[in-house]
Amino acid sequence: MLSRIKTPEFHSIKITDSLFKHYVDLIAKKMLPYQWDVLNGKGECVKSYCINNFKIAAGVLSGEHKGVVFGDTDAYKWLEAVAFCAMNGEKDFIPVADELIELIEKAQQPDGYLNTYFTVVHPKQRWKNLREGHELYSAGHLFEAATAYYQATGKERLLNVACRFADLICKVFGPGQDQCKGYPGHQLVELALMKLYRVTGKTDYLKLARFFIDERGGSPNYFIEEMKQEDHLRIFPELTDYDPAYSQSHMPPVKQETAEGHAVRAMYMYSAMADIAQACGDEELKTTCRKLWDNVTLKRMYITGGVGSSGLLERFTTDYDLPNDRMYCESCASIGIMMFGQRMASLYRDASYYEAVERALYNTVIAGISAEGDRYFYVNPLEVWPDNCLEHTSIHYVKAVRQPWFDVACCPPNIARTLASLGQYICAVDDRSLYINLFISSEMEIDINGNPVRVKMESTLIQGGKLKISVCTNGKKAITVRIRIPSWLENPVFYSNAEEIHPAMENGYAVLAVNREGEQNFELSGKTPARLMTANLNVRADIGKVALTKGPFVYCLEEKDNGNNLAALRIRADAIVEEDVPQKDLPGDLPTLKVKGQRVISTIKDSMQLYGTPEFQTKEQEIKAIPYCIWGNRGSGEMRVFIDTVY
Amino acid sequence: MLSRIKTPEFHSIKITDSLFKHYVDLIAKKMLPYQWDVLNGKGECVKSYCINNFKIAAGVLSGEHKGVVFGDTDAYKWLEAVAFCAMNGEKDFIPVADELIELIEKAQQPDGYLNTYFTVVHPKQRWKNLREGHELYSAGHLFEAATAYYQATGKERLLNVACRFADLICKVFGPGQDQCKGYPGHQLVELALMKLYRVTGKTDYLKLARFFIDERGGSPNYFIEEMKQEDHLRIFPELTDYDPAYSQSHMPPVKQETAEGHAVRAMYMYSAMADIAQACGDEELKTTCRKLWDNVTLKRMYITGGVGSSGLLERFTTDYDLPNDRMYCESCASIGIMMFGQRMASLYRDASYYEAVERALYNTVIAGISAEGDRYFYVNPLEVWPDNCLEHTSIHYVKAVRQPWFDVACCPPNIARTLASLGQYICAVDDRSLYINLFISSEMEIDINGNPVRVKMESTLIQGGKLKISVCTNGKKAITVRIRIPSWLENPVFYSNAEEIHPAMENGYAVLAVNREGEQNFELSGKTPARLMTANLNVRADIGKVALTKGPFVYCLEEKDNGNNLAALRIRADAIVEEDVPQKDLPGDLPTLKVKGQRVISTIKDSMQLYGTPEFQTKEQEIKAIPYCIWGNRGSGEMRVFIDTVY
Repeated sequence: MLSRIKTPEFHSIKITDSLFKHYVDLIAKKMLPYQWDVLNGKGECVKSYCINNFKIAAGVLSGEHKGVVFGDTDAYKWLEAVAFCAMNGEKDFIPVADELIELIEKAQQPDGYLNTYFTVVHPKQRWKNLREGHELYSAGHLFEAATAYYQATGKERLLNVACRFADLICKVFGPGQDQCKGYPGHQLVELALMKLYRVTGKTDYLKLARFFIDERGGSPNYFIEEMKQEDHLRIFPELTDYDPAYSQSHMPPVKQETAEGHAVRAMYMYSAMADIAQACGDEELKTTCRKLWDNVTLKRMYITGGVGSSGLLERFTTDYDLPNDRMYCESCASIGIMMFGQRMASLYRDASYYEAVERALYNTVIAGISAEGDRYFYVNPLEVWPDNCLEHTSIHYVKAVRQPWFDVACCPPNIARTLASLGQYICAVDDRSLYINLFISSEMEIDINGNPVRVKMESTLIQGGKLKISVCTNGKKAITVRIRIPSWLENPVFYSNAEEIHPAMENGYAVLAVNREGEQNFELSGKTPARLMTANLNVRADIGKVALTKGPFVYCLEEKDNGNNLAALRIRADAIVEEDVPQKDLPGDLPTLKVKGQRVISTIKDSMQLYGTPEFQTKEQEIKAIPYCIWGNRGSGEMRVFIDTVY
Repeated sequence: MLSRIKTPEFHSIKITDSLFKHYVDLIAKKMLPYQWDVLNGKGECVKSYCINNFKIAAGVLSGEHKGVVFGDTDAYKWLEAVAFCAMNGEKDFIPVADELIELIEKAQQPDGYLNTYFTVVHPKQRWKNLREGHELYSAGHLFEAATAYYQATGKERLLNVACRFADLICKVFGPGQDQCKGYPGHQLVELALMKLYRVTGKTDYLKLARFFIDERGGSPNYFIEEMKQEDHLRIFPELTDYDPAYSQSHMPPVKQETAEGHAVRAMYMYSAMADIAQACGDEELKTTCRKLWDNVTLKRMYITGGVGSSGLLERFTTDYDLPNDRMYCESCASIGIMMFGQRMASLYRDASYYEAVERALYNTVIAGISAEGDRYFYVNPLEVWPDNCLEHTSIHYVKAVRQPWFDVACCPPNIARTLASLGQYICAVDDRSLYINLFISSEMEIDINGNPVRVKMESTLIQGGKLKISVCTNGKKAITVRIRIPSWLENPVFYSNAEEIHPAMENGYAVLAVNREGEQNFELSGKTPARLMTANLNVRADIGKVALTKGPFVYCLEEKDNGNNLAALRIRADAIVEEDVPQKDLPGDLPTLKVKGQRVISTIKDSMQLYGTPEFQTKEQEIKAIPYCIWGNRGSGEMRVFIDTVY
């Protein structure tokens, strides 16, 4: 039997890629201190009461709990980012984190319960509003932080806090007669329990994760019944007329075939389902995961790796409904695509799942953070006209510029922890293989089945150059290096120690043998031309439109480079896209693209009129595009991914 | 000095036009009985508590008030429609209306106050939440019903009820020391007071209308201050974070230059401002009206005469922001365009204002009601894909099919009263002129300065035929007949008693003399070709798209005629549009249009993929269009006004 594909244990990892290094460095140097200030209520533009809430719950400060019910998770996500940064060699925040962990431990109740909102505000309402209370969601972020912190530092204190709470949850929830049959309103704890299970080996955690998935969507619906309780505490008045599909509880998860409801919840749940399917060898659940993945990536995902077509309720809508200007595409939902895809690649041992992971990471996830690291997008539009992004309108949730923080501040720390833990997406291992999934230049020291392996990867594949990988082992055990061949790479050619080789292909991976001590060098070359792409005919929003791409990067036009009214620009569907020098004031050293196009300069004779007989006039215009991931870093202006064609 | 242009007193009016007769007949024969059932809680699919609320307030029934705070207005608008139908010769509902009026009178409080919600539910909260309470709005609808009913029947009972209430309002509100300095949260009472003033001659009503306009938008904002009161009763929780622009109270109306906030409120207020400017000869207010009209019609109005680009808060957004699929375009707002335009034409003595009135009436207002008269659109999209009109999404307010009724049921009775009173839009009079503004075949008996005039109009102008007008006077006083020359009529030629004449043109009207007793006949012929139109270059949503039109009618494509995925259809910007026979199963006997076009049948090679290299393939397809006003009468399906071009 094949061994499980998993994230390696990193002894060290150093990102050297021009784009990602920029952001990874920002996390330790700028985002961790910035977010720490925010969490402590010292933010420049924003105030979070997160740390104070823990102090109040711990009894070391008196006052009122403030902020949203799931505010604790900001601290947990911050701790998780600190842990990942430590793995990356940036350990400055460890002492601060240790103090925070001490505070968190103090806020934990004697029975293991840990949630500042319910402890301080509604101590008698524990577990009574699973739909809105986010207790299990918050627990999930605690468990994720705890496992990451333990893996990064070897320190057990937070892991013990997490296990005490997890043990309590195992007592409260489960199939037993006196146990609660509910499940989380916002999924996450399921996949977090799987992490805790892997680190601790306690099968109770796996069982509980499975219980939450199995119980979900039963009839009658738990959340609807819960709302009927006399002492039911309402938290979010906007969630009247609750539709169970919002939280994917409209039917048992294993029966679901289309992605419904809140996109982030969906992604977290599907990720947990893939984990459980793998851990339990559950073929039915595995098939469900495949159906859901296919539905998301083949019918409901933007070219930027964004998901969630409706701003209202941040939800999926229907197949091929992908409007460019009124979508949601929450940064966290694209992080969810990365999480789900990573697990699917492991479950199916197939490189192709990384196409969407890469698309999400290289476009929407990076776009979520500013070049300076201190501003964020929650919503990631494919088309923006700042003039109509007004408060209190149908697209008021679309912001034309990144914001300093949010009341519901899931995205900033989520982006931080994701970029700080890139290693888990770059490579994976099983007992005898190293899988290279993303081409992000880096140096890593990991273990494969107990044997140390040093990997050095330099990639300029996307820039039209090469991928150079050097793998160094002790030679005690032969391993194979499996390199994903991405769909965007044309004419891939392999070299081993400077000689052309023809490796076997398995499930999208080129299989290379490493069977001696010392360094072995591989090279992969190929072409990554800039090219136009378009959407399926059923995507009504995009018919006759094209997007400029290069490798995994989707490009966009900005007003700054192309003038305003980007809707007036046109290119031919067979236009030749040329590469140009990187934009100096933007990070990543990524090529810009240019293409000869047209601009509609007149539609009707009298430009003072609103309607008239069409008299379309155009002029030639060279169109310039920059990578979508770095848009919005040069002031407010129009932006557009899909451009109309003339053909 | 020129005498005021006003709506004539109709001794009788009979609509004979093929399209409008269909709907006008429906009102008396179907809508009045249907709506009466609804108001009495006997609706087939819907329940309104409107009449029961009056019974409870009158003390003849015990129970709880149910429904929205402005529910009374449904009865008033129904009464107004009954009155207009009576003018049209349909008097069956007069006895029922008389009974209802008796009930309304019983529900009126001894001091004149009349509002079932506040009387029954919150008697101590009168006038304390002007922002949300709708007391003045409801009063406005009472005043409108009362004046119409009096004019139609000569019966004074409802007029007396209205005046008693208006007199109370004059006491409560005004500049005096003990008077309230507030103004209505939802405008309407201002223009209703103007009607009451014209019928009764009481200048107090004019003064109060003026007071409401003058006081509005003062600093500090009345509504914001009102919300700070300790006993403030909240009615609509969704209106937290109140933005005074929502109710056009962000600045004094006379200073406003752009249309902001809730579109219906705006239109009603502008209409009142035009009335007041005319009555008071206020040049500054007149200029403001002109600026606001220009802003609406030249920058913020759909080609269908719809307004309100945002579904959230049903509001205006910004210049040229006219998305086709997520707009609001409430039927009532287009009725507001008709009201405002009618008053502007009178204020400026200029026919051109009727271009927008006609556009709104011939497209959005009629589209609001089904061919059968029993289903309604509240929101009037220019593009619908039923699959993505899901509940709880960003465009959930867009309905792909007309609905039987609404919780906020302003539109159905508003459409009914508008279509029942078409005469006021067809013609106007001053002391010596008859103005023909719309070409709706009809027979009317009216007075001009005390002299009876009989007008008979037969128009097939839009169908490519002629306008025949016969005017019959007693010859005691010479009058002029002024016929609007619409922008869509090409090569107009006039005949008087079969001889070609060349009348003078004044402000868009051809001026014809009628100076002898008996019948005088005029004919107007010209061409009304089907033609393509497009929008201003600044309308980003429409660049490179065209709409098919003929005269004032905007046409649309329906899935039923053209297959699904209408976004895939293309026509040339210089395509020849041909007329075809009317669609038999749709009312109005209006020509359909056809045009040779293309359908994109492939965008990428592998149609199972979501994105790929563009390989656009098209095939020839004849495209068929029907008038927008009768869309959605053949089941649910896609619909689209603006079609992409190839050029």
